[in-house]
Amino acid sequence: MDNRPIGVFDSGLGGLTAMRKLVEAMPNEDLIYLGDTGRVPYGGRSKDTIIKYARQDIEFLLGHDIKAIVVACGTVSTVALEQISGEYDTPIFGVVEPTAWKAAKLTASGRIGIIGTVNSVNSGAYDRAIQRFRPGSYTFSKACPLFVPLVENGRVNRGDRVIELVVEEYLSELREQEIDTLILGCTHYPLLSDVISDFMGSGVKLVSPGEETAEYLIKKLRQADALAQPDRPGRHRYYVTDSTEGFERLASLFMDSDISGEVSQTELF
Amino acid sequence: MDNRPIGVFDSGLGGLTAMRKLVEAMPNEDLIYLGDTGRVPYGGRSKDTIIKYARQDIEFLLGHDIKAIVVACGTVSTVALEQISGEYDTPIFGVVEPTAWKAAKLTASGRIGIIGTVNSVNSGAYDRAIQRFRPGSYTFSKACPLFVPLVENGRVNRGDRVIELVVEEYLSELREQEIDTLILGCTHYPLLSDVISDFMGSGVKLVSPGEETAEYLIKKLRQADALAQPDRPGRHRYYVTDSTEGFERLASLFMDSDISGEVSQTELF
Repeated sequence: MDNRPIGVFDSGLGGLTAMRKLVEAMPNEDLIYLGDTGRVPYGGRSKDTIIKYARQDIEFLLGHDIKAIVVACGTVSTVALEQISGEYDTPIFGVVEPTAWKAAKLTASGRIGIIGTVNSVNSGAYDRAIQRFRPGSYTFSKACPLFVPLVENGRVNRGDRVIELVVEEYLSELREQEIDTLILGCTHYPLLSDVISDFMGSGVKLVSPGEETAEYLIKKLRQADALAQPDRPGRHRYYVTDSTEGFERLASLFMDSDISGEVSQTELF
Repeated sequence: MDNRPIGVFDSGLGGLTAMRKLVEAMPNEDLIYLGDTGRVPYGGRSKDTIIKYARQDIEFLLGHDIKAIVVACGTVSTVALEQISGEYDTPIFGVVEPTAWKAAKLTASGRIGIIGTVNSVNSGAYDRAIQRFRPGSYTFSKACPLFVPLVENGRVNRGDRVIELVVEEYLSELREQEIDTLILGCTHYPLLSDVISDFMGSGVKLVSPGEETAEYLIKKLRQADALAQPDRPGRHRYYVTDSTEGFERLASLFMDSDISGEVSQTELF
């Protein structure tokens, strides 16, 4: 039994997909979320800068006596984690392994698509992980650099001509490749599930990294007997690097509950 | 005569429109450019965060014994400058006054459009300045939050369906208002001049803040007898907060000359 909190971080809001899954599945766990909203997005920055920001995010969470970290950021998970996770004693869970494992399990044809930021796609991290879990799979990846700003501008709904046009542009090649499973390799992308699913067709299963990683963490904590005491109420704290107001409003929608008293602004060094 | 350098800063690449104008008009001036590429974009962040970043940008430049600062960032100029410029002895030139003055001079009908980031438009800074220079003008403003990510992704050319669709969406109202002058109130936007001009029609004059502010600074330095010695060669230095590589390539295109030896990475505190 381990009542210490779990830390979750992302460049911005996207990691709340993982946070929500953890809140629902483990209401007795203390959770601390960090969104680096003063420096979002990470997706197009250089590898060195992504590593620097990731270390600052991790060290902030380590200052809160946590038992594990979920890196709910596709860019950090694919670009930085391999290099830096060994620097820390606390277990750090990125999104790549659980998501690739789930995709490998879901696919029937072995044809799997991967979408993400430029850096995530260039890293090849998902492709390698899928080959480990299902050797001989065909992977097709495509960078979608406009998806994050579109999501952050709320352009996520069916009927929005801009997001529909961008989805068509980015995903046409993947549709031609007749994939049957698509990894939404950036935690912002599940907000586009409706539009993506309409375009790809109902035969393509979408895999959401935040949710898969939350499920994987729960399994690992259970195996290690490191879950919190079952009958206690979990406490949740949110930290952001830009002001709390915009985040409180959007995150409350995202979490489907009012979190406005639970958010604080912080600095990262 | 004053041979100290002029400092120019922006959240990213956009301020190079001002930098290029200064290089061309005053080849004998030393110039220092700062692009906060590790934290771009500023446009959607909170006022407090914009002010914090602006102070760090200004203080970095002040560490280089400069004689004047050009704030080549529409968001900082409109949201932060009024509040913080009084904190410093060095003269600081934002883009609002010179750009509004030029627009007021160019308009025949007195109907002027303003486009910018959400924060810039909400500040009302351009509207107020235009009323001072040309009382009774009609101003029509529209936030265009997707323009910066589109420009940063190179989506600036005629025939690009995405940028054309977004331009149509954002600018239709302004076209209906029959403006004859349009302020491109963010230093990224001049890269969209072709597409914007095609949509608005040749009767609408576009005003570029970076260029206007560079011209205004030259006039002011001349009046104060603070130009550099005429026969000396100006030296140029560029500083960025993300890695230098991506910036060197894009900025060389932007400046129409190879600046790759002149760029260094720095940190801001």
